[in-house]
Amino acid sequence: MYTDKIPDIIIGRLPVYLRALQRMSEKGIKTTSSQELGEHVGISAAQIRKDISQFGEFGKQGTGYSIPFLLDKLREILKVDRVWEVALVGAGDIGHALARYQGFTDRGFRIICVFDNDSSKVGAKVGSFTVEDMSKLSDKVRECNIRLAMITVPAPAAQDVADILVKSGIKAILNYAPISINVPNDVHVQYIDPASHLQRMTYYL
Amino acid sequence: MYTDKIPDIIIGRLPVYLRALQRMSEKGIKTTSSQELGEHVGISAAQIRKDISQFGEFGKQGTGYSIPFLLDKLREILKVDRVWEVALVGAGDIGHALARYQGFTDRGFRIICVFDNDSSKVGAKVGSFTVEDMSKLSDKVRECNIRLAMITVPAPAAQDVADILVKSGIKAILNYAPISINVPNDVHVQYIDPASHLQRMTYYL
Repeated sequence: MYTDKIPDIIIGRLPVYLRALQRMSEKGIKTTSSQELGEHVGISAAQIRKDISQFGEFGKQGTGYSIPFLLDKLREILKVDRVWEVALVGAGDIGHALARYQGFTDRGFRIICVFDNDSSKVGAKVGSFTVEDMSKLSDKVRECNIRLAMITVPAPAAQDVADILVKSGIKAILNYAPISINVPNDVHVQYIDPASHLQRMTYYL
Repeated sequence: MYTDKIPDIIIGRLPVYLRALQRMSEKGIKTTSSQELGEHVGISAAQIRKDISQFGEFGKQGTGYSIPFLLDKLREILKVDRVWEVALVGAGDIGHALARYQGFTDRGFRIICVFDNDSSKVGAKVGSFTVEDMSKLSDKVRECNIRLAMITVPAPAAQDVADILVKSGIKAILNYAPISINVPNDVHVQYIDPASHLQRMTYYL
């Protein structure tokens, strides 16, 4: 049992814990402590205990956390105990990298289609996908009931793509275009922008 | 004049403001308000005013912010009023995308070298760069006094690469490998992991 009022910042840390636990599990490790997990992710043990306790009593004093149990719980909380189908829009360099990226499958996601509006790219292979024309995007998203999309188009095209995605029923967008996009309140957006991430660090140098 | 005690979370929003202001400036817009900027970035006007006021009085009641002035100030605060040279380690798909990425130049960064330990990649062209062998990384970082690096190697290799970078004098790492890396306290790390970003959103679906 957990409440609906968990702060965003805590939700944002759960994928970090999940990723670290998944790697520990792959190495055959069965239990961990908040201290050990904290060393892996660079977050204090106290913060980790506090974050996880928001969702229930998942650890035992003295024996720590069972990794398989905590993995199951975190996957359930983040709703990645299933596989989400993802539409990818933009078949450029980053689109290619994502289409071939091996890191989605065991973490709850599967790209199922790739779109571009460049006729020289439509029909071409990107990883194991054949690039489809943008005009087919809406129908595909609706037919397959896709809720997540990744935008890897140039900045000037990103808002138009976002509008089409939202109208088609997409509820979460991972945006690689270096521009903020406007979406309705019930649509979630996350940004991946390497220059912004670098700028967060130069402040401290 | 500003203090050293600005919370990380505020620093993290400044690149978002900077990016939006830069795009407004490219469109020829000279002034903006916290309301307008807020609509562009999806952050409340009150929060924006509060964040910016940490660094001084940059806006005027009624007339808002001068975009060129605010751009200069934000670039100065984030120390991107200069160009930082960046080393890229890993010449795979993401490395290729980053080496050809056009979005760094006007935002304070320039990749100057690309490394890989795969002998079939060393000597090959990636964008305008020739891939160099990992054995040359330390000397290059020291000679050129490079402070920033991006890691785009597979997860199992990321910690070793990070160790080499840190020993060579790197102080900020943007890590694309889907694994947390351990670095000394004076080295900054940011992570780009698309699956984690997607997982932050599925919680809300």
